[in-house]
Amino acid sequence: MLSDWLHHSIKSLDQTALQSATLRQTQLTKPAGSLGRLEQIAIQLAAMQGQQNIVVKNIHISVFAGDHGIAEEGVSAYPQVVTTEMIRNFARGGAAISVLAKTLNAHLEVIDVGSAHPAGPLEGVIEQRIAAGTRNFLRDEAMTAEQMNEALAVGKAAAQRAIDTSADLFIGGEMGIANTSAATAIACAIIGCSPIDITGPGTGLDVAGVLRKADLIQQSLDVHGIKRDEPMRALQCLGGFEIAALSGAYLFCAQQGLPVLVDGFIATVAALVAIHFQPQSREWMFFAHRSAEPGHRRITEVLEVKPLLDLEMRLGEGSGAAVAVPLLQMAASTHTQMATFAEAGVSEKQDD
Amino acid sequence: MLSDWLHHSIKSLDQTALQSATLRQTQLTKPAGSLGRLEQIAIQLAAMQGQQNIVVKNIHISVFAGDHGIAEEGVSAYPQVVTTEMIRNFARGGAAISVLAKTLNAHLEVIDVGSAHPAGPLEGVIEQRIAAGTRNFLRDEAMTAEQMNEALAVGKAAAQRAIDTSADLFIGGEMGIANTSAATAIACAIIGCSPIDITGPGTGLDVAGVLRKADLIQQSLDVHGIKRDEPMRALQCLGGFEIAALSGAYLFCAQQGLPVLVDGFIATVAALVAIHFQPQSREWMFFAHRSAEPGHRRITEVLEVKPLLDLEMRLGEGSGAAVAVPLLQMAASTHTQMATFAEAGVSEKQDD
Repeated sequence: MLSDWLHHSIKSLDQTALQSATLRQTQLTKPAGSLGRLEQIAIQLAAMQGQQNIVVKNIHISVFAGDHGIAEEGVSAYPQVVTTEMIRNFARGGAAISVLAKTLNAHLEVIDVGSAHPAGPLEGVIEQRIAAGTRNFLRDEAMTAEQMNEALAVGKAAAQRAIDTSADLFIGGEMGIANTSAATAIACAIIGCSPIDITGPGTGLDVAGVLRKADLIQQSLDVHGIKRDEPMRALQCLGGFEIAALSGAYLFCAQQGLPVLVDGFIATVAALVAIHFQPQSREWMFFAHRSAEPGHRRITEVLEVKPLLDLEMRLGEGSGAAVAVPLLQMAASTHTQMATFAEAGVSEKQDD
Repeated sequence: MLSDWLHHSIKSLDQTALQSATLRQTQLTKPAGSLGRLEQIAIQLAAMQGQQNIVVKNIHISVFAGDHGIAEEGVSAYPQVVTTEMIRNFARGGAAISVLAKTLNAHLEVIDVGSAHPAGPLEGVIEQRIAAGTRNFLRDEAMTAEQMNEALAVGKAAAQRAIDTSADLFIGGEMGIANTSAATAIACAIIGCSPIDITGPGTGLDVAGVLRKADLIQQSLDVHGIKRDEPMRALQCLGGFEIAALSGAYLFCAQQGLPVLVDGFIATVAALVAIHFQPQSREWMFFAHRSAEPGHRRITEVLEVKPLLDLEMRLGEGSGAAVAVPLLQMAASTHTQMATFAEAGVSEKQDD
């Protein structure tokens, strides 16, 4: 039984602001369309924020960390304790997302939603542990329905903190050894594709390791028999606590009207769950980058989205989203600060 | 007779710093290679700056503006006076590059290297006018040899100002009604391709206009009969003052060891001239973005470079390079500030 809040309606974009922004982009001193995707971003932001004076200043980054029972099958190149070691590294400022958040002057929080080895109290880490990792989805449902509701609520609470601190943009990141296995399994269940087609190396498996991982995922899909119109059941049977938290955060942001910048492979699978559960939630999402993880391309094709960046990144943590933030900021600054043809006294295009 | 300084040797990259940076990237707390192209940027910056403490803080942007005799053939959708009107718009802060420079806290200077209609003294505009536009290259060589040397020296002087103010990165932008015609003609001469294959709409020609533009460029190529190993003759016969200034700036930056971030179509053609004249100069260049102007893809293929961004931009002014600056800054911050596995106490990859 899903929590009631998940069914609340998604906020509509402001169509008046969208039309005004579309018009304004044709009046700024540049050939129409010449700022390319920056123009589309600005128009989308105006529709989200309901105004022309769009702002992308206060960035909230929540990194959710959790462990996966499937890790015991040897699907990752790293030991499970790395999830906890990285929680400490996030908190101490040594991880990529820590550095990128500092570079952006963004607020970074880390949520332990269920690591196998608790890190203990740490400044900057919120403990909302549901269990010491999920169950091995090759044998059991990864979470109980109750645990999934809890994990979704952890994401909702993070989005609420972003709203409470007047964030302009929400970024969700994740850390969890073996979570490309979980994400790949969820994607296969929802898209209806074969694991062999989209399973990738994650943090660095060799070819034999990838084949074995794909086989384990196929076995797991056979065990659970999830239908394509059951995104929340896919999440419960195959997901991780951190993936469910991301899905919950995205849904709540879309209900409340807070723009989301979706990171790479894992985060896009969490978005896939949210979108298949509430299709309109997609309107509140920007997709930051194309991950080097091979399954990501397939998922973005299904979602019909074209990520902003393609830098061959495959780190997670929200790092790809962080790298894309300046694009949104520059879209906003050109939209709000450029002069119009009339203001600048610049001649417009000649009609033949 | 080319000025002597053009033949001065290009500075070599620091191979020791390059090797140290390559090693450091494997020691940082992330799966090897997972920051993708950000890792390659960091390594290249370290080799350029000769140290691991790489910095991309002080950004120098020089926008060169000039007019083109070929404009009288009706190859642009905008009247020639727009070059001058945009010089004023740059100076007053209303243009895209003005806004982007402010967003980046970069230094922006505008150089009038030969507009047809002088803007008059303006704060932030350097007057180094060579002539009131080039000659129509359908009938004459666009510049005399002397004029080309002057224009190249205008670019050198801009790069020298960047060096004098301790810039970490040089960006060259351009403005000049009809300069996609000049750039396309130069590219055809150097690459040896047909105008019909790479001519595009520039600021917004329709299909008939593009065909006519390609035909005029073909006629011009027939008039001048430039050989493929004559990049400077292509520049003189077909170029603009602003394109020559960019080529001169790029060559001087590479001689002095100042990293360059190359903008889109016009700027890449200026880089093509520099690289065909002194191939090693390419080592000092980052390529910011893939322009929507169709010829750009062909040129980047010939140069074997993969631009960092693909945002369907086609504005010029250095705008695409400005949008890519944060990528270099984030490459630098992750390289310098992330913890190593040893520092963070994070377990490394398990060997099978």
